[in-house]
Amino acid sequence: MVIMIKPGVQQDKIEHLRNWLEEKQLIVREYQGQEQCVLGLIGDTVSIDVDMLRSLDIVESVADMRDPFKASNRALHPDDTIIQTMGGKGPSIGGGNFGLIAGPCSVESREQVLFVAEEVKKAGANFFRGGAFKPRTSPYDFQGLGEEGLDLLMEVKRTTGLPIVTELMDIRNLEFFDEVDVIQVGARNTQNYDLLRELGKVKNTILLKRGLAGTIKELLMSAEYIMASGNENVILCERGIRTYESDYARNTLDLSAVPILKKLTHLPVIVDPSHATGRAELVPAMSAAVAAAGADGIMIEVHNDPAKALCDGPQSLTPEEFRETAAKIFKIREAIM
Amino acid sequence: MVIMIKPGVQQDKIEHLRNWLEEKQLIVREYQGQEQCVLGLIGDTVSIDVDMLRSLDIVESVADMRDPFKASNRALHPDDTIIQTMGGKGPSIGGGNFGLIAGPCSVESREQVLFVAEEVKKAGANFFRGGAFKPRTSPYDFQGLGEEGLDLLMEVKRTTGLPIVTELMDIRNLEFFDEVDVIQVGARNTQNYDLLRELGKVKNTILLKRGLAGTIKELLMSAEYIMASGNENVILCERGIRTYESDYARNTLDLSAVPILKKLTHLPVIVDPSHATGRAELVPAMSAAVAAAGADGIMIEVHNDPAKALCDGPQSLTPEEFRETAAKIFKIREAIM
Amino acid sequence: MVIMIKPGVQQDKIEHLRNWLEEKQLIVREYQGQEQCVLGLIGDTVSIDVDMLRSLDIVESVADMRDPFKASNRALHPDDTIIQTMGGKGPSIGGGNFGLIAGPCSVESREQVLFVAEEVKKAGANFFRGGAFKPRTSPYDFQGLGEEGLDLLMEVKRTTGLPIVTELMDIRNLEFFDEVDVIQVGARNTQNYDLLRELGKVKNTILLKRGLAGTIKELLMSAEYIMASGNENVILCERGIRTYESDYARNTLDLSAVPILKKLTHLPVIVDPSHATGRAELVPAMSAAVAAAGADGIMIEVHNDPAKALCDGPQSLTPEEFRETAAKIFKIREAIM
Amino acid sequence: MVIMIKPGVQQDKIEHLRNWLEEKQLIVREYQGQEQCVLGLIGDTVSIDVDMLRSLDIVESVADMRDPFKASNRALHPDDTIIQTMGGKGPSIGGGNFGLIAGPCSVESREQVLFVAEEVKKAGANFFRGGAFKPRTSPYDFQGLGEEGLDLLMEVKRTTGLPIVTELMDIRNLEFFDEVDVIQVGARNTQNYDLLRELGKVKNTILLKRGLAGTIKELLMSAEYIMASGNENVILCERGIRTYESDYARNTLDLSAVPILKKLTHLPVIVDPSHATGRAELVPAMSAAVAAAGADGIMIEVHNDPAKALCDGPQSLTPEEFRETAAKIFKIREAIM
Repeated sequence: MVIMIKPGVQQDKIEHLRNWLEEKQLIVREYQGQEQCVLGLIGDTVSIDVDMLRSLDIVESVADMRDPFKASNRALHPDDTIIQTMGGKGPSIGGGNFGLIAGPCSVESREQVLFVAEEVKKAGANFFRGGAFKPRTSPYDFQGLGEEGLDLLMEVKRTTGLPIVTELMDIRNLEFFDEVDVIQVGARNTQNYDLLRELGKVKNTILLKRGLAGTIKELLMSAEYIMASGNENVILCERGIRTYESDYARNTLDLSAVPILKKLTHLPVIVDPSHATGRAELVPAMSAAVAAAGADGIMIEVHNDPAKALCDGPQSLTPEEFRETAAKIFKIREAIM
Repeated sequence: MVIMIKPGVQQDKIEHLRNWLEEKQLIVREYQGQEQCVLGLIGDTVSIDVDMLRSLDIVESVADMRDPFKASNRALHPDDTIIQTMGGKGPSIGGGNFGLIAGPCSVESREQVLFVAEEVKKAGANFFRGGAFKPRTSPYDFQGLGEEGLDLLMEVKRTTGLPIVTELMDIRNLEFFDEVDVIQVGARNTQNYDLLRELGKVKNTILLKRGLAGTIKELLMSAEYIMASGNENVILCERGIRTYESDYARNTLDLSAVPILKKLTHLPVIVDPSHATGRAELVPAMSAAVAAAGADGIMIEVHNDPAKALCDGPQSLTPEEFRETAAKIFKIREAIM
Repeated sequence: MVIMIKPGVQQDKIEHLRNWLEEKQLIVREYQGQEQCVLGLIGDTVSIDVDMLRSLDIVESVADMRDPFKASNRALHPDDTIIQTMGGKGPSIGGGNFGLIAGPCSVESREQVLFVAEEVKKAGANFFRGGAFKPRTSPYDFQGLGEEGLDLLMEVKRTTGLPIVTELMDIRNLEFFDEVDVIQVGARNTQNYDLLRELGKVKNTILLKRGLAGTIKELLMSAEYIMASGNENVILCERGIRTYESDYARNTLDLSAVPILKKLTHLPVIVDPSHATGRAELVPAMSAAVAAAGADGIMIEVHNDPAKALCDGPQSLTPEEFRETAAKIFKIREAIM
Repeated sequence: MVIMIKPGVQQDKIEHLRNWLEEKQLIVREYQGQEQCVLGLIGDTVSIDVDMLRSLDIVESVADMRDPFKASNRALHPDDTIIQTMGGKGPSIGGGNFGLIAGPCSVESREQVLFVAEEVKKAGANFFRGGAFKPRTSPYDFQGLGEEGLDLLMEVKRTTGLPIVTELMDIRNLEFFDEVDVIQVGARNTQNYDLLRELGKVKNTILLKRGLAGTIKELLMSAEYIMASGNENVILCERGIRTYESDYARNTLDLSAVPILKKLTHLPVIVDPSHATGRAELVPAMSAAVAAAGADGIMIEVHNDPAKALCDGPQSLTPEEFRETAAKIFKIREAIM
């Protein structure tokens, strides 16, 4: 249930209503928009007398909210959420701020990450990504550099000033992620609810990927796990879904998810065309499409030498290809403003 | 098998080789590119001595072609096919020419089609679409005006000068489609092979939609049925595929199919975001994405009064919404040129 | 809308009500069950006064029927439909009668079909199948023997007494199918509505396959096209659906469709495990499962020499394998009776 | 790479070869079949001289194994794995032993689990299942009784003698699962690789469910993570896959996975028709099909009062329905023996 408070109502009156609702065993979420305040009620609202609520002086309207996702629901929070990084000194994502996240699939060496980071920064990237812990389908494949990889990423941050995006797979490693600006939850962990709950207790921004064959609703419900535990800094990421068509691309990029999610939620929505297609040759055209569709950001894999990459080489752009792609993205964003 | 002829070889020498190959029971397709000629061999090429072919004076190279689609294969025809309409006096699609096709799902009345046609023409559309014969899931739903609808479409053509795109469902109606510029094959008939074969014998351009859950390869094989019967004027159309995600959009628009198809085939590739999403509110963002992805055209449903449409109202734009969407498309095309 | 007539009501009273309803522009379908009569109303029932209907002496109850499929709906026709063949002298399908349909994918020669037919008959098959017109993905593949194939099938029928199941692809060939006992509509034509409408006008039984990625509802709606045109002899056939999993089987056999369809409709439901899996080695286990799940029949591809089959060899059983599979099917049917 | 040792070779000679291979940095898995020993090599086998291996006295043959799954591969271990429980005193699964696992979705109370356990045991179940930790899509739904639930399950075990199957979601809870006979990995954790690795270090049997939209290959690779870490007691469980068809069943039961997996791997394969269909009315027919298809076991949800279940009520059988279903399963197993 959602209660829209009339514009200009004093905070103590809102507080009063809020306390009364909490006594009814409801969780109350308060959102302060530019013009008015909204209260979202989570829990069993059957006992609430809606007519009485509507008759209150300070209440403008009361609406039932059927969607199972509450905290992420745009109905409760009409303004776009803007995610800030580095205590407000870094780049932002959402509300018109575009995140151009680039870097290799996995951290392989100090030389590699520093080189790629400088290259993508020059091309306009404002975030650096790289995997230290890698979810690999086979236990016999390269599993990432682990903690050593995290250290190299921190060095990249110090050197380039770019905030870092990297994946957490195992709850027990969370302690090493303190300095990580954006913790990525990979597609295989989108419904690892215990992990999500823990991420609701930290201060880092969470980049939550859609499941391998996850629905849009499931993605929002997973965000809800994080937000319900206290962390509202969540970025949603479309990364392709599993369909019957896999002859020419690894997954099917579901680009309509961008306008759909933008309508359903106030959280920023970005796209990963590299994992969605699995093929570098498709990334430039799909990156242009992502920008045109109105996404809040994009995450692109870039590798100094894709043919020799320890992971996901076939989907990585070279720095040169990334430069051209980034330029196209910026042009399209200008065109549609 | 594909034989690249050296640049500058005289036609009679090519003819000579061609005759020799045809005597071996092969079908030979000849493509005259800007610089050189290519011969594509269809049939059982086992008996051909490749080394002998390679040693011929006039042959530059011989390549095996594994793809089951031949006539539509870009390897055989490196240049983009440009589809012309109205005997060259109408708009073209392909090779840099963009087709903006718009109109209502079904022809409902003279007033309706004339009004919508004038509106979309003003907004920049260069083709008019409208259904006279409608494939409806239920036998109890409106099935279209039939021949009367075709007559109204011809009146639109005379009045506005726009070439007409409309769907043929039943082979036996083909005789009524003489004046139709572009005959559409709907998603439910993409593998109606007898229909495709007949369409290979006519002179109209064919707009071939991808099946409801068709693969990219199947789409190309269906084009092959038309082309193998003699008609090379085929436009391919992505229209969304069936996936598990249907809560927020009717189908999943598979936009990656655009760059994939552009690489595999020389035929023009367009997208129908209206049927792909089934929801008007998603069409503007997806139309922008289609333009950015490099498609050769787009087909958008526009209705004077979507709420009262006899068919597919929820996915139709109003003329006003179409005008804004068209403007965005043109801006993006400029930006990426 | 469905009107249940009280048991024992005289036919002239029912006729009277029926005429009155037909004057309201409704189509009325009458089903005579073992105990009582049911009237199904198709069309715009808004103008009908339900309370008045309920108050009639002869009416037991009136129910709204939301399902878009009417004629095939079990609510309208609680008893199983039993399809008879050869004017009642051949085998039946439905209502406890099991159809064991076997034969090669395509008719290749007189010797082949006669040999296979004798073999499958000995093993217990009561229908013979074979394709004369073949829907092939590539125009360059073997397309079937056509009319000559139909003649050979008729010879099989004369020799073995088995009724014949064979596919019609092109409406224009319908005239040749007079003597065909069961006309098959293939998965690529499940939504070829003009074809379905024509099949509603003939007397043959129609075996309607589910579309390549068709929903259960679409299958029922396609049956509705046939039945609404007058032919109620329709058998539904699950044949596997297209999913993301295609490494080890061509399609995913959706066996739950059997109990689902048995509940929704009174029409017989059979399964084609050969096309569903595309691999002979999976057919025996899946055939056992089909029998256990309560299907009314099964259609299995059997070839004298699968390795040399002109079509779909890898999914065909040898006569020996078929004999074992048939024996297993019979044992399971006994066990679950 | 797989090395088949000749029958009758003495163990010390095999040990000698094994040591030599391990010095080459290969992991060597040894399988002692009824007639001969097989060595499976995991790792980089490029440096191995295959011809030399083949020439050894004790070697019968050497084969390359392309499948990425090694430890679970039937090529390496031709005999069925038989999983024993309770130190050999409990029921077994695999190699002709059928596991009939039944119980409620979640543990709700002492009375509930004891009642249901007695009921299913009487009907022939040889394992009891119940969830203490529940993966729920919404953070606001009932999440299970946790440790208290585990205690109740242990009481069921003491009272009925049935071994217990229950799900682990969070690695950090592993310490509480010591007495659990079969630890279930749910569909949302099938690719939680860190969890799988930990489960490779315990002695419990692991019941590994296929992912929500997981491939057969991914399921085997996940088993590989467990086995590569040392635990070979793994049961695979098909539980329905996500497809476009969800109007009448929650998932599509992919029953062909049973014969496919039985061919690819020596591990036992069971099916969960309750989660696969999500609807109790489909469970009896699908359970019969599971038995007919040759599965090594089945897991069925049974609840004392499905309408009041805290979780997944609509898919639970009543004890009476379970009794009938179990009887049918036993009859079919007899029929196909």
